[in-house]
Amino acid sequence: METWDVIIIGAGSAGLSAVIYAVRSGLKSLVLDEQFAGGVIANVPIIVNYPGFLEISGAELAQKMTDHARKLGAVVHDIEAVTALNLQGETKILTTSVATYGAKAVIISMGSHHKEIGVKGEKEFRGRGVSYCGVCDGPFFKGKRVFVVGGGNSACITALYLSGLAVQVTVIHRREIFRAEDSLIKEIAGKNNIKILWNTEIQEIKGDKQVRTVILQNNKSGQTSEIEADAVFIQIGESPNSQLVAASGVEIDKYGYIKINVRQQTNLNGVFAAGDVTNHPIKQVGTAVGQGITAALEAYAYIRRPYYKNDR
Amino acid sequence: METWDVIIIGAGSAGLSAVIYAVRSGLKSLVLDEQFAGGVIANVPIIVNYPGFLEISGAELAQKMTDHARKLGAVVHDIEAVTALNLQGETKILTTSVATYGAKAVIISMGSHHKEIGVKGEKEFRGRGVSYCGVCDGPFFKGKRVFVVGGGNSACITALYLSGLAVQVTVIHRREIFRAEDSLIKEIAGKNNIKILWNTEIQEIKGDKQVRTVILQNNKSGQTSEIEADAVFIQIGESPNSQLVAASGVEIDKYGYIKINVRQQTNLNGVFAAGDVTNHPIKQVGTAVGQGITAALEAYAYIRRPYYKNDR
Repeated sequence: METWDVIIIGAGSAGLSAVIYAVRSGLKSLVLDEQFAGGVIANVPIIVNYPGFLEISGAELAQKMTDHARKLGAVVHDIEAVTALNLQGETKILTTSVATYGAKAVIISMGSHHKEIGVKGEKEFRGRGVSYCGVCDGPFFKGKRVFVVGGGNSACITALYLSGLAVQVTVIHRREIFRAEDSLIKEIAGKNNIKILWNTEIQEIKGDKQVRTVILQNNKSGQTSEIEADAVFIQIGESPNSQLVAASGVEIDKYGYIKINVRQQTNLNGVFAAGDVTNHPIKQVGTAVGQGITAALEAYAYIRRPYYKNDR
Repeated sequence: METWDVIIIGAGSAGLSAVIYAVRSGLKSLVLDEQFAGGVIANVPIIVNYPGFLEISGAELAQKMTDHARKLGAVVHDIEAVTALNLQGETKILTTSVATYGAKAVIISMGSHHKEIGVKGEKEFRGRGVSYCGVCDGPFFKGKRVFVVGGGNSACITALYLSGLAVQVTVIHRREIFRAEDSLIKEIAGKNNIKILWNTEIQEIKGDKQVRTVILQNNKSGQTSEIEADAVFIQIGESPNSQLVAASGVEIDKYGYIKINVRQQTNLNGVFAAGDVTNHPIKQVGTAVGQGITAALEAYAYIRRPYYKNDR
């Protein structure tokens, strides 16, 4: 069994920041990711709020962070999913699609994934008009009629992105007010080609080879209508990727997020968590970075100092 | 009296990150700094651990963050010291060298300052072998002879950290006993590559382009000696810049750091804190950034959401 000082599960902003500090601290450090390194930001068209970069594409920032980690000596294994975990003992055991590893400490930075609406046609037309990522799939629908479902920051950001590509963007929101930043709400108000349907829910997505129509219902009046649509971008929220670690005894909150304190400690000794998978109230690149750094330096202290205490 | 949604005291990494998010959230936001914007990193020669920048001078990163904030519309007042504060009421009142301001929320990001020994060569070789931060600069001296000056917790932690990187660490302490936690003292005793010179003071730091030697004096015998050295880490204390806010009722710990929770809340409603001035265990650029972002979004929620709660 290959052994490491620290294994970091998830190579997004939090995990890459953690490994930068872990490697610089002299820890033998491995990062695993079931997908390519870089994390969820790789799919974000433009990031304007990571301090230091006025404007950078998510793909470029993801690449910079990955290069940064690798150039400092981090070992990053892409496309290697963790399939089983034992986090209880002093040596943590991780089984992946490739090997079994031992580690003195583990940092969980597995992120979160989008939620599904759960309507008829959503699964069927996924990749054929139904999408969860504006930047990935938006360009396929240039000049078409696209719908965005949701009312938070990610729905607003996606609608703004698509408005630059599509002739007509319609935002479908079940409430009558957005839960997004003011600046986004104002920007949307200034776009001629973004229409908002308040108090509206999607009931079904229909089509043949591709999405052709959506059936909408106004949740106040009860009225339904069938409208032509080429694409539906679903942006209704996120779920943390915490099932595997929760099954190994890591405490989660009622939404599934890992409970942490300011030191990024979990309830298990030697197990730390950082980024979108945690119950930290803010999910931003810059906060994931800060949490990853803290988790790494705490993992270092846990490994190297015999009197280290978990105060979560 | 000029009124603002949020006033941020201190334009370092934490304060600038806070204002980037505050402005984008639509808050009327002012940042005050008694010195030039950019904060303590402006004096750091090379930063290699802010994720995304493999290597950047502290001055350049400070400038990028300041420009970033200003280009998004932040109002940053350099060289405007806060001289009096009232943080108790719903409207916070701040008096500066220039004016009096009102604010709905305040973010304290006033940083900390390290204590200097005040010997010849200390200023001259700063960034060229003289350092005040082991985690930041230690990795540059792998396999070298490094000295740590001090006898408290931070000196012991720094010595332990460096012992994992450097061949030989020598701790110079003017007394004959450490003022550190027992656990740290025991750990140091267990390290083969940490040597302690008791009753010893540093008299001068010498070199050419880099530190080459230190002149030491035993303060009992009076004997001096010149010893080869690659780096001198000065760890004789760090003081948070919290006196003014503590006098206005913000709760601090026994070392003077502002007590915060994961949401960067202080004990006072509408008063948040971020960065080196807080009791967060890690003091790094990336952690200051994450805390600043969190403080700003929490201040936004405090101002805009009627049911916002302080759970510190």
